[in-house]
Amino acid sequence: MNSSRIDPLGVSGKSCSTGSSSGAGSFIGDPTQMDRWLLGQLTSGLDDSKVRMVLWDEPVRANRNMLPVTVCIGDRGGLFQMLRDPALYFGDLYSSGRITLDGDLLVLLDEAYRFLDKLPKTSRWLERTRVRKPGLSDSRNNIHHHYDLGNDFYKIWLDREAMQYTCAYYAQSSMTLEQAQQAKMHHVCRKLQLEAGDRVIEAGGGWGGFALFMAQNYGVHVRSFNISKEQITFSREQAQARDLGHLVEFIEDDYRNISGRCDVFVSIGMLEHVGTPNYRQLGELIARVLTPEGRGLVHTIGRDRPMPLNAWIARRIFPGAYPPTLREMMDIFEPNSLSVLDVENLRPHYALTLKHWLERFEQHADVVRAMFDESFVRAWRLYLAGSIIGFLHGDLQLFQVLFARTGANGIPWTRDHTYPPRD
Amino acid sequence: MNSSRIDPLGVSGKSCSTGSSSGAGSFIGDPTQMDRWLLGQLTSGLDDSKVRMVLWDEPVRANRNMLPVTVCIGDRGGLFQMLRDPALYFGDLYSSGRITLDGDLLVLLDEAYRFLDKLPKTSRWLERTRVRKPGLSDSRNNIHHHYDLGNDFYKIWLDREAMQYTCAYYAQSSMTLEQAQQAKMHHVCRKLQLEAGDRVIEAGGGWGGFALFMAQNYGVHVRSFNISKEQITFSREQAQARDLGHLVEFIEDDYRNISGRCDVFVSIGMLEHVGTPNYRQLGELIARVLTPEGRGLVHTIGRDRPMPLNAWIARRIFPGAYPPTLREMMDIFEPNSLSVLDVENLRPHYALTLKHWLERFEQHADVVRAMFDESFVRAWRLYLAGSIIGFLHGDLQLFQVLFARTGANGIPWTRDHTYPPRD
Repeated sequence: MNSSRIDPLGVSGKSCSTGSSSGAGSFIGDPTQMDRWLLGQLTSGLDDSKVRMVLWDEPVRANRNMLPVTVCIGDRGGLFQMLRDPALYFGDLYSSGRITLDGDLLVLLDEAYRFLDKLPKTSRWLERTRVRKPGLSDSRNNIHHHYDLGNDFYKIWLDREAMQYTCAYYAQSSMTLEQAQQAKMHHVCRKLQLEAGDRVIEAGGGWGGFALFMAQNYGVHVRSFNISKEQITFSREQAQARDLGHLVEFIEDDYRNISGRCDVFVSIGMLEHVGTPNYRQLGELIARVLTPEGRGLVHTIGRDRPMPLNAWIARRIFPGAYPPTLREMMDIFEPNSLSVLDVENLRPHYALTLKHWLERFEQHADVVRAMFDESFVRAWRLYLAGSIIGFLHGDLQLFQVLFARTGANGIPWTRDHTYPPRD
Repeated sequence: MNSSRIDPLGVSGKSCSTGSSSGAGSFIGDPTQMDRWLLGQLTSGLDDSKVRMVLWDEPVRANRNMLPVTVCIGDRGGLFQMLRDPALYFGDLYSSGRITLDGDLLVLLDEAYRFLDKLPKTSRWLERTRVRKPGLSDSRNNIHHHYDLGNDFYKIWLDREAMQYTCAYYAQSSMTLEQAQQAKMHHVCRKLQLEAGDRVIEAGGGWGGFALFMAQNYGVHVRSFNISKEQITFSREQAQARDLGHLVEFIEDDYRNISGRCDVFVSIGMLEHVGTPNYRQLGELIARVLTPEGRGLVHTIGRDRPMPLNAWIARRIFPGAYPPTLREMMDIFEPNSLSVLDVENLRPHYALTLKHWLERFEQHADVVRAMFDESFVRAWRLYLAGSIIGFLHGDLQLFQVLFARTGANGIPWTRDHTYPPRD
């Protein structure tokens, strides 16, 4: 078997020793009795018909045909870190190649989730990440960290038509990523009952794909706010290229500085970065800008119960991010006389969206490696794969919340308009 | 003009003096300067182009053609009570005829709501009613008070086919009450994807209409729990008459005693009587009885922001009732690994349902009067009319919350199945 075939999942060859001297008190030598005892502690509770963990002296490939996945911890420092806080350190150890796999990363993550589900809900190390209230400059730094990695990087694996870095809507499960992102945008526009001439404010516009889509397909005027400089630049170029500059204005500013009036307020995939302490203020802002019969929609990753973001994701991928529960989201609506009309949970759609993203990412891993390095490729692979499993297990949810002002009576009778007659 | 034409709205004739001696320190005599000053305090803020309030010496009919509604306070005790706590005492004063109207009760209530909307949200007298945790015997007393008024009474004005005393679903706004109640039941069954053979548990089954509907139309097995003796007796008779006894079991017991397993848990219009302190326990119960891939739906009157029930309604009509906010409802789901899939707010549908109920009630007011008395007729008229206005103003909401277990992956891809192809 060609070893390059399994490279995407990070197998290392004959033994997985890294020879690394990093990690507290580590030195390379054969594992001791103590190391093996610690490994036993680490793996107790894992389903040993699916996952096997080995130490650095063990030939990884020997087990290839017997188990879905073998995990090799490459040095003693890595073993100690895994014992101390697997949710935090596994990501770094895997990214740097100090943990290698033979087999399917998704199977490993699936098993890890099953394992975590069995732990008491308030397990100590799940609680490490504390949410604090992001100020304006925190937000800029956090957003820059993730969204300014380069438009070229995201172009590689997002849908080609609208660069939607948010959950798609698979109206039919056989849809391509491009079709499902178009379907998502139509779904949101139908929920909001966009009509030509409506004034729309978008908070957190990504690469401008949705703002341009709304203008092009529904003839609305959009003011789209975003604090990612690279995204704004790209969005403006797109508006010019598609001759939509008269309908869409891209504003490089924080959502907190939104002013004016609008018939429709929409925010797709921004709330994750707002921070619960700011929700009430966001709701005040919406209540200030929305016309009396205005409609709004917030689309966000969420949770069924409150839980901090995985510590490694919070540190390396999404600093400052937090997926809220519906209860937490009510801080936007309840104090501000906004009435929730409709909530749709699209959880399985995000698992499939991520699967499509990961496939494209792997197809172009060489390009990504050339743009960044191997550890970046491994980190993003882990993030995408982990998110798939997170949505499949229900650790993550995807909420679309439609709302209007309390007592506004221009709201639609039914949701029929969201489900146009089918062929 | 024939005075009987306006009798349903309670006009009294030439002067509205009641001659009543009830109320603290009241005696009948012409209103004093102080009485008129107090009336001024009471009416300041009311839109005087719509509502006029007068005292017991004033000829009511003089204003008939000038204003939509004239309110006459019939004695000094009533005036004092209105000043002290209008939300509590108006209902009793109106019911007993110590307050009479010339004009449209709905206009008066609409104006009263507008007036209340302008008050600070924590206005003192809105907060009178405190929620406490209802125990088993409280629940029995509360339910008996309202639902055991006699099946014959409810038959007069509820839909004839299924006696649904909950919000209907006007798939088309031109539907009759009967059509809309059938549509509501189909809507819920579609959301729950009922399949023949499913085991359904219903908590709070009313007169059994929905349990029998599910069995008849979807071939499911239903165990329906209810603590209203009269309703259970009626339900069992219906099951026998329709030859559905082999599919539906009506159990006279509290929801807290539900046991066994079910594929589907459904509760329509019971949560209003459960009390927020019991929500977590209700969720535990659901999580205990539901199969791993089971589905559930809770349908309840709700609020956009927490607020006690109107004091008069709480005292005279619905003791122990409380319409929760979505945030409060999350106590059912969040601690019990239940995942909210879909929330639909049917607020305008309840206003229309109530309008249909009130129309039928007025058509048969004589029958109701013969069953009870005039003050009962007036109390229920006020309750139904007040509820219409409550829903129109957004003081009341109607939430249908669909849920499954966190991470259950048998949930449907989309909501298409709820919206079958239309003609």
